Amino acid sequence: MEKVKIVIAGPRGRMGKEAVKLVMETENYELVGVLDHRHEGKNLAELEGFTNVDALVYTDIHKCFKEQQPDVLVDLTTPEVGMEHTVTALEFGVRPVVGTTGFSSGDLSKLEDLCKQTGLGCIIAPNFAIGAVLMMKFSQLAAKYFNDVEIIELHHDQKLDAPSGTAVKTAEMISTVREAKQQGHEDEKETIVGARGANYDGMHIHSVRLPGLIAHQQVMFGSDGQTLSIRHDSYNRASFMSGVKLAVDTVMKNDTFVYGLENIIE
Amino acid sequence: MEKVKIVIAGPRGRMGKEAVKLVMETENYELVGVLDHRHEGKNLAELEGFTNVDALVYTDIHKCFKEQQPDVLVDLTTPEVGMEHTVTALEFGVRPVVGTTGFSSGDLSKLEDLCKQTGLGCIIAPNFAIGAVLMMKFSQLAAKYFNDVEIIELHHDQKLDAPSGTAVKTAEMISTVREAKQQGHEDEKETIVGARGANYDGMHIHSVRLPGLIAHQQVMFGSDGQTLSIRHDSYNRASFMSGVKLAVDTVMKNDTFVYGLENIIE
Amino acid sequence: MEKVKIVIAGPRGRMGKEAVKLVMETENYELVGVLDHRHEGKNLAELEGFTNVDALVYTDIHKCFKEQQPDVLVDLTTPEVGMEHTVTALEFGVRPVVGTTGFSSGDLSKLEDLCKQTGLGCIIAPNFAIGAVLMMKFSQLAAKYFNDVEIIELHHDQKLDAPSGTAVKTAEMISTVREAKQQGHEDEKETIVGARGANYDGMHIHSVRLPGLIAHQQVMFGSDGQTLSIRHDSYNRASFMSGVKLAVDTVMKNDTFVYGLENIIE
Amino acid sequence: MEKVKIVIAGPRGRMGKEAVKLVMETENYELVGVLDHRHEGKNLAELEGFTNVDALVYTDIHKCFKEQQPDVLVDLTTPEVGMEHTVTALEFGVRPVVGTTGFSSGDLSKLEDLCKQTGLGCIIAPNFAIGAVLMMKFSQLAAKYFNDVEIIELHHDQKLDAPSGTAVKTAEMISTVREAKQQGHEDEKETIVGARGANYDGMHIHSVRLPGLIAHQQVMFGSDGQTLSIRHDSYNRASFMSGVKLAVDTVMKNDTFVYGLENIIE
Repeated sequence: MEKVKIVIAGPRGRMGKEAVKLVMETENYELVGVLDHRHEGKNLAELEGFTNVDALVYTDIHKCFKEQQPDVLVDLTTPEVGMEHTVTALEFGVRPVVGTTGFSSGDLSKLEDLCKQTGLGCIIAPNFAIGAVLMMKFSQLAAKYFNDVEIIELHHDQKLDAPSGTAVKTAEMISTVREAKQQGHEDEKETIVGARGANYDGMHIHSVRLPGLIAHQQVMFGSDGQTLSIRHDSYNRASFMSGVKLAVDTVMKNDTFVYGLENIIE
Repeated sequence: MEKVKIVIAGPRGRMGKEAVKLVMETENYELVGVLDHRHEGKNLAELEGFTNVDALVYTDIHKCFKEQQPDVLVDLTTPEVGMEHTVTALEFGVRPVVGTTGFSSGDLSKLEDLCKQTGLGCIIAPNFAIGAVLMMKFSQLAAKYFNDVEIIELHHDQKLDAPSGTAVKTAEMISTVREAKQQGHEDEKETIVGARGANYDGMHIHSVRLPGLIAHQQVMFGSDGQTLSIRHDSYNRASFMSGVKLAVDTVMKNDTFVYGLENIIE
Repeated sequence: MEKVKIVIAGPRGRMGKEAVKLVMETENYELVGVLDHRHEGKNLAELEGFTNVDALVYTDIHKCFKEQQPDVLVDLTTPEVGMEHTVTALEFGVRPVVGTTGFSSGDLSKLEDLCKQTGLGCIIAPNFAIGAVLMMKFSQLAAKYFNDVEIIELHHDQKLDAPSGTAVKTAEMISTVREAKQQGHEDEKETIVGARGANYDGMHIHSVRLPGLIAHQQVMFGSDGQTLSIRHDSYNRASFMSGVKLAVDTVMKNDTFVYGLENIIE
Repeated sequence: MEKVKIVIAGPRGRMGKEAVKLVMETENYELVGVLDHRHEGKNLAELEGFTNVDALVYTDIHKCFKEQQPDVLVDLTTPEVGMEHTVTALEFGVRPVVGTTGFSSGDLSKLEDLCKQTGLGCIIAPNFAIGAVLMMKFSQLAAKYFNDVEIIELHHDQKLDAPSGTAVKTAEMISTVREAKQQGHEDEKETIVGARGANYDGMHIHSVRLPGLIAHQQVMFGSDGQTLSIRHDSYNRASFMSGVKLAVDTVMKNDTFVYGLENIIE
């Protein structure tokens, strides 16, 4: 079997480092180059933390694509740079796998059009943790049979926002199928304000913050005599890599635009 | 809307009692009679625990069906009696919803044939707890993306068999999609025999038994940096009733034979 | 060994019934009578649900104590009646074990004085579930070593108040030893109000309400790289009986006044 | 307040690195030197990963102690070297805090004697994670009130032995107070061998192994109608440092020999 030739953009970031490791450890993948905003012409092996990784560093995406003719671009940069990279990739016939959260809806429809024109697959995934994506998908499925649900998300105490983005996304997905309901007893009373958590469309979300915790979420459904709980625990960034691999393998077979890993998971 | 006319077989058993309650509390259901092996001709209201339930008790299924012309038979008896009831129902044009676990494969194919001949729906469900069925279904889905899984089931300490039937069923369902793998380290060693639990096709199953517990199961998947857990807690028999309701509503629309609630859950 | 002669006040209530069962099943206990507000002179065996329980029903506590000379009064009535019963018991030389929550501090100090005068043991316990009492006690111990703690309590959705009384009691007990701290990031922001739960002295309490749930509480402590969780699950009222037994056995040896089961648990 | 002068032995190991960080970040601690088997005469700042840490490296413990006159030796080496270091420290008037598991009982009694002679405190702690130590201690306390207990320990799938050392230690501690009992139903039957886990003195221990997991243990107690669970999750080695700090602070006040952190936790 011929190897999938891969270029990684943003190799020195936290996810980039994991992606380099993934490509090195996967038998039928080949790392043919990396895109960085500096270190032009060096070999990745010369940079700290990449001993034994043989790949040329490019700062110019056109030069990189021309010289290396990759199959896939794995982009782990920023929304601004990422959009430019993704467009360029599609124009060059390179299939993009992009892990970034800040694309505008205008960006997304432009990319979808480009995919149609070129007949190339392209996957944009704000969350590559397959476990988290399955948790959200299963929660949505369960909400058809359980009207009552509460979300408990638990993170380290350095997190600024509550609830977490994943909790809100989960609540949104559940809302699309759940029969509307204001949960809890109608005469329920908080003797200390906030006890019942955040109210999203009648569902309640609770944000726990403690030092030591990393990133965890539990979705609990209840009905007479039973509860069903779906929980994801993320311990480190390695959790994203099985999702990146799934996206790379899928984008090689797909010829359409996909937004969100949940849409390539059956 | 016309009410669904229901006959319940086995009304005095633990599940039967819950089923009577369900039918009484559901607006578009009507309890037109019950089948029992005694108390012929009495009204259910005369029996202990059924005050305010107005329904005739029959010991003869033919007489019951002729007089009441029900739409659905909810059978919560035993495999022997249940099979006879189900066949009779299909012959009378009554749609059966059956909650029993001991039917032989011969029984099942005979019933499937009868459904084809009569064009009637029929649902046989060994487990009516929707939460448990979803847990098994989600576990099967997750096993496509996670090779490593362990099952922990927890029951009261009066349970005789380990692992539980649900745990084995879950492992079977996972096996149909999971890439074969002997889990754990290849040089793993038990310093006290049994520590690693039961080995089912390379997966491990752990049976916890404690007074106080009722019926609980957690299915845990792991890959680099993350775990995904799906858990069902059953606290009492009321947990079965939402499944019975789903089955009754579905059997009225279906014209096929269905074995297992998982096959009517999308 | 001589049997402990016990009178139960309030035998027909939910806890009373469990207490009757406990006394019947405990080898060295003897049920010598029950106090009720009616059924004077009947035998408990004549009342519904007490087949095979042989004990005289009294409505007059003086008559009961004179005729039966009990060792212990187990009182499971109301604050008003309970106070009168407890005082009368101490005056008669009967040791009281009382499970009620509404005693005033005046009542309590009056009882403490009576214990000193009579040299009799007396135990007042608002919560007889040993598991819940241990959860609170362990949480208080852990708070000496962990500054950061969040409480998650989970109950059925018919509960009116949030947080639960046990959660607030737990937070109070933790507060007495925990170094004061406002938890979470100082710039933490709720994008949906209430997400971070109730704030009690800088700790956060989250109240989950779902049908199916019974009464559960988890206390989570976190510090660098670790979390410690203490959880109590109460499934039914039988959970109180081991605490009643411990109290009866202890009150027979004690000659002091005790408020709260946590003070007889070492 | 005068600073506590500390020497760390084994600064380049995984725990050693965390200990260096702890000492640097604690206001009243001062790192006056480190003991290594090489790099004599260098400054720690010259070695990889220790930028900004100013401390002399010694290979000779006598020279180190003479020049630096430390208050405390934190030894994170091996049993062989560690024993020699500890003896030498006590002879020099330096209080040892030692984190190693392999000391023989002969070693331990020799050290206890030396403490008596010198009047110096000394703490040997096989486990510095306060959360794990509290979990074991609470489990032992709970076993006085709950006869039935099962231990579930969960680790990454590269772990070779099952059950874990901590699980066995926990079971041992519980055994010293728990009334002997063979748990589970007396006619209990394993349909797949191993389902009921390892049997330790009638208690059951279950070892879960999955990629992604780190080091977790849950101790579950059950009695009529309730369960009590105590769980410790360890996410990384930082979890040991609060225990090292507690040991250092305690050893400065103590004048006795202590084996096991549980003995300095009240």
